[in-house]
Amino acid sequence: MAGPTRFMILLTCFELGVIDVLRENSRMTAAEIGKTVGAKPDAVEQLLHLPVKEGFLRHDAVSGTYSLGAFAGVPENHLQQLLQVLNMIKVVMYRQMFYLPESVRTGTLVGLEKLYGFEGNLYEAVAEHPDLRTAWATMMDGVTGQNDPWFLRHVDIPPGAQVLDLAGNTGLGAILTYRRKASPGLRVTTFDLPEKETECLENFRAHGVEEHCSFIGGDVFESIPRGFDVVLIKHFLDMFDKDDVVRILTGVHEALDVGGQVNILVPVYPEDIGDPSSAGVDFFPAYFLACTMGRGGPQKLSTYRTWVEECGFTVTRTVAQDLTTMPGTLIAHGILCATKTA
Amino acid sequence: MAGPTRFMILLTCFELGVIDVLRENSRMTAAEIGKTVGAKPDAVEQLLHLPVKEGFLRHDAVSGTYSLGAFAGVPENHLQQLLQVLNMIKVVMYRQMFYLPESVRTGTLVGLEKLYGFEGNLYEAVAEHPDLRTAWATMMDGVTGQNDPWFLRHVDIPPGAQVLDLAGNTGLGAILTYRRKASPGLRVTTFDLPEKETECLENFRAHGVEEHCSFIGGDVFESIPRGFDVVLIKHFLDMFDKDDVVRILTGVHEALDVGGQVNILVPVYPEDIGDPSSAGVDFFPAYFLACTMGRGGPQKLSTYRTWVEECGFTVTRTVAQDLTTMPGTLIAHGILCATKTA
Repeated sequence: MAGPTRFMILLTCFELGVIDVLRENSRMTAAEIGKTVGAKPDAVEQLLHLPVKEGFLRHDAVSGTYSLGAFAGVPENHLQQLLQVLNMIKVVMYRQMFYLPESVRTGTLVGLEKLYGFEGNLYEAVAEHPDLRTAWATMMDGVTGQNDPWFLRHVDIPPGAQVLDLAGNTGLGAILTYRRKASPGLRVTTFDLPEKETECLENFRAHGVEEHCSFIGGDVFESIPRGFDVVLIKHFLDMFDKDDVVRILTGVHEALDVGGQVNILVPVYPEDIGDPSSAGVDFFPAYFLACTMGRGGPQKLSTYRTWVEECGFTVTRTVAQDLTTMPGTLIAHGILCATKTA
Repeated sequence: MAGPTRFMILLTCFELGVIDVLRENSRMTAAEIGKTVGAKPDAVEQLLHLPVKEGFLRHDAVSGTYSLGAFAGVPENHLQQLLQVLNMIKVVMYRQMFYLPESVRTGTLVGLEKLYGFEGNLYEAVAEHPDLRTAWATMMDGVTGQNDPWFLRHVDIPPGAQVLDLAGNTGLGAILTYRRKASPGLRVTTFDLPEKETECLENFRAHGVEEHCSFIGGDVFESIPRGFDVVLIKHFLDMFDKDDVVRILTGVHEALDVGGQVNILVPVYPEDIGDPSSAGVDFFPAYFLACTMGRGGPQKLSTYRTWVEECGFTVTRTVAQDLTTMPGTLIAHGILCATKTA
């Protein structure tokens, strides 16, 4: 029950600058901290009880001073990462989730409509609202920066293959794929909505891969380009309910020749939903249903495997991240590799 | 970090009626639940992962059905209590806490101003806004219903005493005090803002205690009525910072004759702030600073004791609730009894 209060108290300690102040000057009283950050000492004392309770800060009862506890051992850049996630949750999710019941009933993002007067999904809203874009893109850059290299290490791309990066946005995934998998004749094509073309081609030029990467505009629900050996689907299937996932995978199956491959990267729920090390089911239903799509959400890797097979593919490999070997990561991703065999 | 998402996901399961439906018909599929509550089965599945993870519900993978888990053992009235607290947090606190940083900087309730255009504190806002009043009063009735009888069991009121219920609101505390402590000549007087008088006197008449209870209108920060043997201060000191608590207690000390007593009931933080059984420091800073007063918050019982002594009283008894013997209670209250000895 105290979840939202804990979140806002801890975030407020950061936003007021209390943590920064204590990183610079240890052993300050509530009065000294209050003077520095512009808050009444009584309020500072109230707010700091929780980080003291959690061991993040220490309080010395004799001198009445505060100093860094567990936060002392956290490098500056890790604290910045933490703060980026907290800020994303605050800006993109916190108030929007108030309308989760209405969003589930209507299948729309009621919070986005109430708070921004915006009808559509978050991916459309970030184009118009810089506060949403900054908070969301900063977090997503961290997610893709961590997971896309891991994905490419586990995915086999034959030399000289023609690769389609499905829903590849502005081409950064294609660029990374070309660089990690470069071979004579390898070509990576970003497929996304036509309005992404200009920025995508600029990115290809800026990264010097314009001779090996290209762009095709279109809609995955209408027609998927043919003539490719390998299709990559990253950070995409989790945005949809089963009916749409099946439409996408069926479209990919139709577009591939026999022997063609699909490689999927997606956040996954643990096979044992009760696994306490995963925060996925604590987080994603609210993220997708109330804040980003009004539908969708990840599945277990085994569920995705079943769906991929239902669409006619033969699954050749699945890989799931093991959270117990990834300190600080709360969400596991999975990979499915499959081949069109008939 | 997943605190707000967990809160809204679980609350949404209640608000959509999923829990009610499963209390009536166990072993329903997501499709059946979705049809009953008016939501897409995919969304129902996403939302129910978390209560399954927590053991509140059970999911049978073979039949794909859900049934009550731990919730099965919870009596209907306990679930209602839980829902009242969840609803109070949603309506009175959730969106308001978004502005906790600004509230701490300004010492005002920025959320109340942004969401309701209201300047003032929650206790004033509930008079104008029925949604806030209903959510807040329902929860407070539970808190006082649980704690005031406990308080009176531990407080000694001499036969025939003249008792002042400081900040006694609309007289319900005076009525309970008279009933529990009745003796020949006992008189309990509610002291609060003059605008409470009409409703207070109505309450006295409705409960048949109008000959033993009375009302005095005034402001605790201006002048406290004299001529009383015992002063009760319940659910009040936690609303203020130290400077105001000292003003109130000093005023009470001045108003009492030597030998006069004060009895205080207040939520308290545990002496060991790190005590994991207490949720007080996880909750109250946000409740008071962002949602009700823009200041204030409970203290440790030992801190209140020091403050009471600083104001000239001799403390004769302190009692703290032991949360380990009170299953389901997250917040401990304390009692301080003190006498004016000089």
